[in-house]
Amino acid sequence: MYQIGFDVGGTNLKVGAVNDDKVIVARRNVAFPKGETYQNITALMAEQVRALAQELNISAKDFKSIGVATAGSIDAAGAVILHAHNLGFHNVPMVDEMHRYFPDVPVFLANDADAAALAELHAGAFRDKKTAVLFTLGTGVGGGIILGGKMFKGGMGRGNELGHMVIQEGGPICTCGNKGCIESLCTATWLIQQGRRVIVEYPISLIHEKAEGDMNLVTAKTVIDSAKEGDTIAKDIFNTYVGHLSSAIASIAVLLDPEVVALGGGVSLAGDFLFESLRERVKEKSFFKVYHEVVPAQLGNDAGIIGAAMLARNEE
Amino acid sequence: MYQIGFDVGGTNLKVGAVNDDKVIVARRNVAFPKGETYQNITALMAEQVRALAQELNISAKDFKSIGVATAGSIDAAGAVILHAHNLGFHNVPMVDEMHRYFPDVPVFLANDADAAALAELHAGAFRDKKTAVLFTLGTGVGGGIILGGKMFKGGMGRGNELGHMVIQEGGPICTCGNKGCIESLCTATWLIQQGRRVIVEYPISLIHEKAEGDMNLVTAKTVIDSAKEGDTIAKDIFNTYVGHLSSAIASIAVLLDPEVVALGGGVSLAGDFLFESLRERVKEKSFFKVYHEVVPAQLGNDAGIIGAAMLARNEE
Repeated sequence: MYQIGFDVGGTNLKVGAVNDDKVIVARRNVAFPKGETYQNITALMAEQVRALAQELNISAKDFKSIGVATAGSIDAAGAVILHAHNLGFHNVPMVDEMHRYFPDVPVFLANDADAAALAELHAGAFRDKKTAVLFTLGTGVGGGIILGGKMFKGGMGRGNELGHMVIQEGGPICTCGNKGCIESLCTATWLIQQGRRVIVEYPISLIHEKAEGDMNLVTAKTVIDSAKEGDTIAKDIFNTYVGHLSSAIASIAVLLDPEVVALGGGVSLAGDFLFESLRERVKEKSFFKVYHEVVPAQLGNDAGIIGAAMLARNEE
Repeated sequence: MYQIGFDVGGTNLKVGAVNDDKVIVARRNVAFPKGETYQNITALMAEQVRALAQELNISAKDFKSIGVATAGSIDAAGAVILHAHNLGFHNVPMVDEMHRYFPDVPVFLANDADAAALAELHAGAFRDKKTAVLFTLGTGVGGGIILGGKMFKGGMGRGNELGHMVIQEGGPICTCGNKGCIESLCTATWLIQQGRRVIVEYPISLIHEKAEGDMNLVTAKTVIDSAKEGDTIAKDIFNTYVGHLSSAIASIAVLLDPEVVALGGGVSLAGDFLFESLRERVKEKSFFKVYHEVVPAQLGNDAGIIGAAMLARNEE
């Protein structure tokens, strides 16, 4: 039996058929047709499902479920995409639309960060765990929470926005308008901004050298690699970053008391250099003496597809 | 049918018999016998249960349940008080002890802040709610969480320590050793410290007048009342306090998406003056547009007894 998982992002519309072993056995990837009506977009999605069925030599109505993981906010019933600005989606009745094409297949909808946590639960870093928190560290900070062995959908069904917890009152202005949110201090964006500052202020740093003195060439990796190679200024930035992130992790841990915290997204690719330093700082700040794990997320770019495919199981 | 609820604190050992309407129909209050062995203390507790039975003209074995709400930390099984420093309790097998005296009565144990939230769920500010957060603002900051209509015991059964979430990295040192925890910024203690600073620095303030220039007479109420009466310096302190508390509330709200947040403890007695200002600031900082309520807790000093009595129902 196969379950369909869609990962709908502003750049790519990805979809896969996932088998009972939680492996993606067939997949398709098309450019997200930005600017199209949602009806045209869901028609394109239905086409992908049919193509996957054909590839697997089954009928589309034999898929056990269809799950859609999307950027943006979902209604409490899990049926409508309320707002996904970078998709141009506003009040899109995704579940009804999919049902129009596949009336016999159960359809589920979730936020992509929540779905990613669910994917880790079924097939990644959260296997055999009941309570866990996933941070995705990229341009912004997203997050998904597992409680009681289920994807936590938020008390009122609006999911979580853990990136907008405040860890530094009066800190940098966040995309949401507040100051000092996790998202304003723990993103790749923050690392890039700091790296650019170095280009301007300290022309002899390794960051400057790696980016050839060009602000636009500074990435989070530039800064982290420079720190790893021992550059003093880069190490300073990196340590400050780890300070912010460890505060964020320790804060959520005292509230939810999780077994494990996993990090995904671009920044998490820094590997042991990041995780060893981070574990030490989180430990210092941990209130509970029995100490939860801090590990890399395992599913990377497939988290959305697998998590979306697992949405049906979350309702069992 | 009556359910027994104990509220075990460092000063008082309070106990009540709670009826099906969640009303305390009989109660006793004895000084907590600090320094006694736990066996002597539980013997004293058993005595109180027998006395309540006698008062109600029933046999103690007819109590439907016995619940114990205590300061300190509880083991994941909900049977042993691991550490309650101000009670002198370390690894006290409270459930077994109560069972020795009342083998036929189900016995339950919980942290007092968690129990207080459960009391609000059954008989106070959280009635008919599924998700809610209680802050108790006193010398420290405690908190209890309701998720899915049940008392949240923490992912790994260690409850929550919401007072130790960081809202101001690098802020004042907290009792836990970290800096900028909610507990270091949102307590009565913080207000008192600020008030004392005023006594030293600004001899013409209303705080100075109310406290007769004596640092030891400054209470949280002194500061709040002075702000209410328009004193500029006191208003400054009060606004800063509301800033901290609103950050704490908004942070937890983006993570848990609750229907309602309630405040208990001494500071919450400031009433509308506090709540109106607080609601406005929380609203400014809220990520979700549909806005959860911020209300006073309703059960005051009875929260522990009622919550403890309701522990049996939380397991149903």
